[in-house]
Amino acid sequence: MFSQKVTDNLRRSSGIRAMFEEGSQLKKTYGAENVFDFSIGNPDPEPPAETKEALKRLVLEDKPGLHWYMSNAGYQDVREKIAASLNRDNGCKLGADNIVMTVGAGGGLNVILKALLNTGEQVIVFSPFFVEYGFYIDNHSGKMVVIPTDAKTFQPSLETLEKAITPLTKAVLINSPHNPTGVIYKEEILRRMAALLESKEREYGTSIFLISDEPYRDVVYDGAKVPSVLSIFRNAIIGYSYSKSLSLPGERIGYVAASDRIENVEGLIGALVFANRTLGFVNAPALFQKVIGESMGAKVDVNIYQERRDILFNHLTSLGFECIKPQGAFYLFPKCPTEDVSDFKARALAHKIILVPGTSFGCPTHFRLAYCCGVETIKRSLPAWTALAEEIGLKK
Amino acid sequence: MFSQKVTDNLRRSSGIRAMFEEGSQLKKTYGAENVFDFSIGNPDPEPPAETKEALKRLVLEDKPGLHWYMSNAGYQDVREKIAASLNRDNGCKLGADNIVMTVGAGGGLNVILKALLNTGEQVIVFSPFFVEYGFYIDNHSGKMVVIPTDAKTFQPSLETLEKAITPLTKAVLINSPHNPTGVIYKEEILRRMAALLESKEREYGTSIFLISDEPYRDVVYDGAKVPSVLSIFRNAIIGYSYSKSLSLPGERIGYVAASDRIENVEGLIGALVFANRTLGFVNAPALFQKVIGESMGAKVDVNIYQERRDILFNHLTSLGFECIKPQGAFYLFPKCPTEDVSDFKARALAHKIILVPGTSFGCPTHFRLAYCCGVETIKRSLPAWTALAEEIGLKK
Repeated sequence: MFSQKVTDNLRRSSGIRAMFEEGSQLKKTYGAENVFDFSIGNPDPEPPAETKEALKRLVLEDKPGLHWYMSNAGYQDVREKIAASLNRDNGCKLGADNIVMTVGAGGGLNVILKALLNTGEQVIVFSPFFVEYGFYIDNHSGKMVVIPTDAKTFQPSLETLEKAITPLTKAVLINSPHNPTGVIYKEEILRRMAALLESKEREYGTSIFLISDEPYRDVVYDGAKVPSVLSIFRNAIIGYSYSKSLSLPGERIGYVAASDRIENVEGLIGALVFANRTLGFVNAPALFQKVIGESMGAKVDVNIYQERRDILFNHLTSLGFECIKPQGAFYLFPKCPTEDVSDFKARALAHKIILVPGTSFGCPTHFRLAYCCGVETIKRSLPAWTALAEEIGLKK
Repeated sequence: MFSQKVTDNLRRSSGIRAMFEEGSQLKKTYGAENVFDFSIGNPDPEPPAETKEALKRLVLEDKPGLHWYMSNAGYQDVREKIAASLNRDNGCKLGADNIVMTVGAGGGLNVILKALLNTGEQVIVFSPFFVEYGFYIDNHSGKMVVIPTDAKTFQPSLETLEKAITPLTKAVLINSPHNPTGVIYKEEILRRMAALLESKEREYGTSIFLISDEPYRDVVYDGAKVPSVLSIFRNAIIGYSYSKSLSLPGERIGYVAASDRIENVEGLIGALVFANRTLGFVNAPALFQKVIGESMGAKVDVNIYQERRDILFNHLTSLGFECIKPQGAFYLFPKCPTEDVSDFKARALAHKIILVPGTSFGCPTHFRLAYCCGVETIKRSLPAWTALAEEIGLKK
């Protein structure tokens, strides 16, 4: 009666939301303070003071036209500031015209994929991967090709990538810092990836784009650096979101940046703006575009997350859980210590721990914990983890 | 190199934007006050005081979590208020669960179409029609079937509609008050349309949805009433936007309402929420959802538009232009007084009048004037219209 594909996908895609709903139910029964909900990536810090001040100033000033339409690409002055900031950080030469303001990174990725894909063209994604990628690619008649990363490091394997590239490969989609592993892809690997893509482009006479989903670019720990995709890849397109760096996920504000080294980049920008308009976004929300422009450089204090990472990571590894130490984002992705992750999920649930099986990320041997929940929740959860580890006989 | 379809559509779809760009160029050359730009529907009144006050209050109160994620459907309390308001106006029984908050009506229509359409299913649209409909339907692999309205009244013809309905018809998409004609579809015609759809559903054993695009529902003149689609059609789905009624087009806030009389409406709502999430909207902007909830019932003063309509309509008809008098929205759609609308556009341009040929709305015998530009622009344009009418020898 409705779209069969949507109905089917809806049935299959309920992993994260199902856990979220289960959590809400448990909280009603046992009280919110007795449930340890690591299910969703909903950052709980408030936006930085600078951002809040900019919002107040703009609303109180109330200049005429603050809430009207602007160019579908977004405000020129805001795009200029973003381009200048990217140029400073990446040594590139973007102008306002290389930037399209978008409804978050989710909106941005859809805009990019619509602008690029012809029916049946392939987008290569490394597992584990953010579950929405499959839906985004399918929205625009593309085909997602999933290839594994290195099982120990979660870094891309170039040998595997090389075998996966075909004449139908339109893009490689990466996400670093990475959801759900917290890994930052190494500069050396990305440089070799860029060389591989260019060599395959020559071999097939095609263009292969590097789409970089970067909502966690500014959420990094221990002074880690995120390699500059714009300087490494010629055909780089970035989807950025302020959801995490400014803790504004509900406001849906981000941008797409297309490298000035892309051939006919004006044509691509035209296609991006057209896609932004005709997918019904029309433009990124007006007021928050201005807020971004007025609080450039503001960032949520990542120490908030680093403290949580340390408490949870240290406790879990001390209990014997195997887990790579996240360098960014706000997820742990430990190895499932039992045979079956769905069984492990149920056993954790008995201890009021809500986690998401790696099945939702194309990696059923692991599970994800979002530690953007409150630090008190994390501290209160530690005895439950200890009890769970003892129950399953985990060896330290 | 990029999406071929987007590149092709981009070339074809530039009618309105092209005129807008031409206008910008002319304004640079001759000064903004000497150019009469009727090209785009960018409302120039400020939002109502109540809406502005609600925004200020919310930003100054600054409650924790104001900018975080919420349910993909939107805030429960805001959806409850909208449902209650629709129930009051339409005598229906919607709950919060019948409402999904969306990124304007453009976002809402895409969400509806994604939730409904299987590949190749048809959506019937009456010409003249908003040019974006074709792109929206194509985004979700549907097929747009365009049928003419009555040439004099621009009301739907049921005889034509009956012939156009096939077993593949998934929806009829209407827009009333109408862009570009300003016509409100008559209740009696809509009632007969509803009966026709139900009879065709029985004949083919299908479901046919009535999608009602209603951004102009609250922009009506001379006390006109917009018939209640929710009370007339069993399978009614509304796409509403606050862009026009609250003059907030840049903020991208609206909703989709699905009739409680739709069979398995829970399934439809599930599909709508999934579509909202996976198209990358994720949710409607958080702060403006709250603003809507806090200023329910606020409306931009339509007398602002009615004055402009009267000045322009009276002058044009006094010169001999044939034009139906708009009952709502903020467009005039006069008959082109010369053979070729593209030639007429050029002749108007020589008088610094910027209009959009009806070609952009599937109706090349007419042209559109958006009178949401300032009243002073309209008054200053009158001598130019007189000169243009004399030049082409228009008979009064």
